[in-house]
Amino acid sequence: MAEREVLLKVEAVALDWKGNPIVVLREQDGHRAVFIWVGLSEATAISMQMEGQQPARPMTHDLIVSILGELGVTLERVTITDMQQNTYFAALLMRGGDQTAQIDCRPSDAVAIAMRTKSPIYIGDDLLDRLEQQRKESEVELSPGSTIVEPGEPTVH
Amino acid sequence: MAEREVLLKVEAVALDWKGNPIVVLREQDGHRAVFIWVGLSEATAISMQMEGQQPARPMTHDLIVSILGELGVTLERVTITDMQQNTYFAALLMRGGDQTAQIDCRPSDAVAIAMRTKSPIYIGDDLLDRLEQQRKESEVELSPGSTIVEPGEPTVH
Repeated sequence: MAEREVLLKVEAVALDWKGNPIVVLREQDGHRAVFIWVGLSEATAISMQMEGQQPARPMTHDLIVSILGELGVTLERVTITDMQQNTYFAALLMRGGDQTAQIDCRPSDAVAIAMRTKSPIYIGDDLLDRLEQQRKESEVELSPGSTIVEPGEPTVH
Repeated sequence: MAEREVLLKVEAVALDWKGNPIVVLREQDGHRAVFIWVGLSEATAISMQMEGQQPARPMTHDLIVSILGELGVTLERVTITDMQQNTYFAALLMRGGDQTAQIDCRPSDAVAIAMRTKSPIYIGDDLLDRLEQQRKESEVELSPGSTIVEPGEPTVH
């Protein structure tokens, strides 16, 4: 029942050849990778954290971390749970005291939060295989000139 | 000590004459208004909710509502608490059982969440007076051709 899971690290926020932001998650102990297209604000939230930038005011994912902290809840882990019809699914596993709760979310939000709480990001081994295979078949690659997204000015309000 | 507070309603998400999104909050029983410049993703989060649009996957503010629901916490109210050097401040007042917690945030996030939880949005009477006065002095107005922001396609991941 318990599928083998693989720890992922956030390798980069990059642009595909059309200029759409992608988060690249790669297995800690291997070469397989997950490429997830994300919105610009989520890409900014992730890349700001990668670059150690602190906005003057809490951005939305910082607010989520504030809420969890205020409520005494920790984010134990994040899991990329599925991909169906080009939509990726993820879950937050939260713990408060001896209770846990699992919450469905988008991987972009999951990663942006996990980076702030230093929570591990997992994916099932079989799903990672499937995604790696599909990516190779569809020849999705970053363009040679792909760049790390430069986050814009943090939104002030 | 207890200052009189005023209930605000979200009147519009509009564009200023430079095309930057603004949230217009107006007092429920009067004419004074607060104009708050917000980021595009927060403007989209607010306008989607105004238009009753349901994204296929939970957007970031929907995720916050999921987290609160899963933890049995309600958002009792939102308050616009201050404005200093063109930066607005807000707070979420949350309740879980007999405990409450107040969390500092940006008004854009506060409004986007409050609209989803149908929580009231308040501002101090004196602060509203001050903002109304400043707005008149700086002649900040929406352009004649200002439009409600049309939210783009919801981000899939």
